Amino acid sequence: MEQEPRQINFAFIGFGHVGRAFARLLIDRKKWLLKEFSLEWKITGISTKNHGTSINHEGLPIKKILGSWKRHSNLDHFNEGPACSSQTDFIRQCGADVLFEMSVLDLSGGPAATYIREALGAGLHVVTTNKGPVATHFLQLTKLARLRGVKFLYEGTVMDGAPIFNMVRLNLPATRIKSLRGILNSTTNYILTQMEQGTSFESALEYARNVGLAEADPSLDLEGWDSAAKLSVLIQALMGARVKPKDIERHGISEETGRVVRAALRRDRRLRLVARAYRQGGRVIGKVELQELEIFDPLASIRGLSNILVLNTDNMRELAIIENNPTVDQTAFALFSDLVSLLQ
Amino acid sequence: MEQEPRQINFAFIGFGHVGRAFARLLIDRKKWLLKEFSLEWKITGISTKNHGTSINHEGLPIKKILGSWKRHSNLDHFNEGPACSSQTDFIRQCGADVLFEMSVLDLSGGPAATYIREALGAGLHVVTTNKGPVATHFLQLTKLARLRGVKFLYEGTVMDGAPIFNMVRLNLPATRIKSLRGILNSTTNYILTQMEQGTSFESALEYARNVGLAEADPSLDLEGWDSAAKLSVLIQALMGARVKPKDIERHGISEETGRVVRAALRRDRRLRLVARAYRQGGRVIGKVELQELEIFDPLASIRGLSNILVLNTDNMRELAIIENNPTVDQTAFALFSDLVSLLQ
Repeated sequence: MEQEPRQINFAFIGFGHVGRAFARLLIDRKKWLLKEFSLEWKITGISTKNHGTSINHEGLPIKKILGSWKRHSNLDHFNEGPACSSQTDFIRQCGADVLFEMSVLDLSGGPAATYIREALGAGLHVVTTNKGPVATHFLQLTKLARLRGVKFLYEGTVMDGAPIFNMVRLNLPATRIKSLRGILNSTTNYILTQMEQGTSFESALEYARNVGLAEADPSLDLEGWDSAAKLSVLIQALMGARVKPKDIERHGISEETGRVVRAALRRDRRLRLVARAYRQGGRVIGKVELQELEIFDPLASIRGLSNILVLNTDNMRELAIIENNPTVDQTAFALFSDLVSLLQ
Repeated sequence: MEQEPRQINFAFIGFGHVGRAFARLLIDRKKWLLKEFSLEWKITGISTKNHGTSINHEGLPIKKILGSWKRHSNLDHFNEGPACSSQTDFIRQCGADVLFEMSVLDLSGGPAATYIREALGAGLHVVTTNKGPVATHFLQLTKLARLRGVKFLYEGTVMDGAPIFNMVRLNLPATRIKSLRGILNSTTNYILTQMEQGTSFESALEYARNVGLAEADPSLDLEGWDSAAKLSVLIQALMGARVKPKDIERHGISEETGRVVRAALRRDRRLRLVARAYRQGGRVIGKVELQELEIFDPLASIRGLSNILVLNTDNMRELAIIENNPTVDQTAFALFSDLVSLLQ
């Protein structure tokens, strides 16, 4: 006799490039989830800031929504549920077991932190790619999840779907992270490596904007805030210290940096924006700064949109993970791998 | 009321540098295993080729054995169990739940394959660091383990304790490995990078021998057999194809290679012994060969004893793992992480 499939309901907050790529991945892996976990899913709610909100407890017609997105880009006319006056209202009414929180990045943490808190408080598992709320409210949110007996997962906040948090948790048992360093921001790394090849700061930034890599206001990237937020998540999750983005010594890059890049090149070295953390007298210090690296340093080989994280541990000495030229599909995979992690 | 701890018995085949480092790690992590898994372990048997055999169903005095190893290096006088006429006899008599197989490498697979088969057949979980038997008997041993409902784990066969097999299994769900490439052998990589710095082949090899990196007979490393055996395990475990070491096109390095290394350097490139596998018309092709790499290729940045593996996947595009200058402790950690994996 076949086992009855488990039914699980998903809700999305945010339906931009990442949300749509994740929905496509869920559809692609439908058979796999049924086979491996005897799991049948439906999406019972999607809420967005500018493209409407939709609830259907029987499951939204996700293929149809994706198919018509280029023409319509609005969810309201798929709504079969109650009208929601707010995201809080949406979370309570959407009937989901898992909330995928993918709203627009706000490094201050809110309003996404409020959505996550509401969802965890209401007994939903939460998976997010949003580094802001995780960095600024780490302790509060992880405690709340523990208290409510639900999972709070955030693999996609650093290096997309490259396994960092899940790898340390599952594959590095009883291991202490002594220090770590990495290149975590693609926009600045892209600009630095383009400047090495003779491109001007302005042209490199313009290109990064055109391919959708840098925001219209790229200051969060250029001033090192994005790296600092990711570093803060790494420190809190992997090194057990309460270091928030504002506690991190932070430098960025600017037009001036071109001169320093070229000077480093002449010495056969490479300039990179390095995020690092180390222990000092019972505390953890976090820094985001420009460093001149020897050419054989693995960080020096990281070009374009690629990222790297090097963990210095007791059990495994130095272990590095490189993610090569990710797209939005790799962020979507982060959500998928967290989903599988909470099913296990 | 406190939970009664689970009791588990371990047996070792082999007690060289790796076995002793693993025993020390088990002692160091005793409290952690009790806390995380409510697990109490004892070692009920150790069998070696040249240093005797010992069984004690009450648990061998492992601290005492380690403490006196430099003076005695013999297990026979700790024996409180039956005399064993063979390793097969030892496996049946040692009373263990898990066998850690760490006997001396034999790329033909035997006799270690026989020990593993015996142990799996007798219902023991088996953890090994021995790439020979895994490469040559992969299908047979994994099938036997499944049939007997026990685990057969081999994280330490490639890149020591760097999570490769456990990472793909646990952190890359529903992911297809399209191709892979890496630097998997430390001796040849050490010699190549030393030759880049002007050292002769003979001096580099001599040094590798002196630090215990290369065997007295280094031909398995130099002729690419070690890389081919590891590549074979990767292909069988991660790409689902039956490619044995003998099926892999294989080249090595020799004194002649120095000239090629220097010619590559003059073009600002790096020569590396690359192991790679790719799919072609339903088959998987494996090759171990010298490749000239661009300086910004992550493989070119790998120096000394370090290793790298780059996985090319559908879900995560390119993902690389680097293990930096491992020692015997990192191989011991591979056994420990497999142990934790089978407890989960």
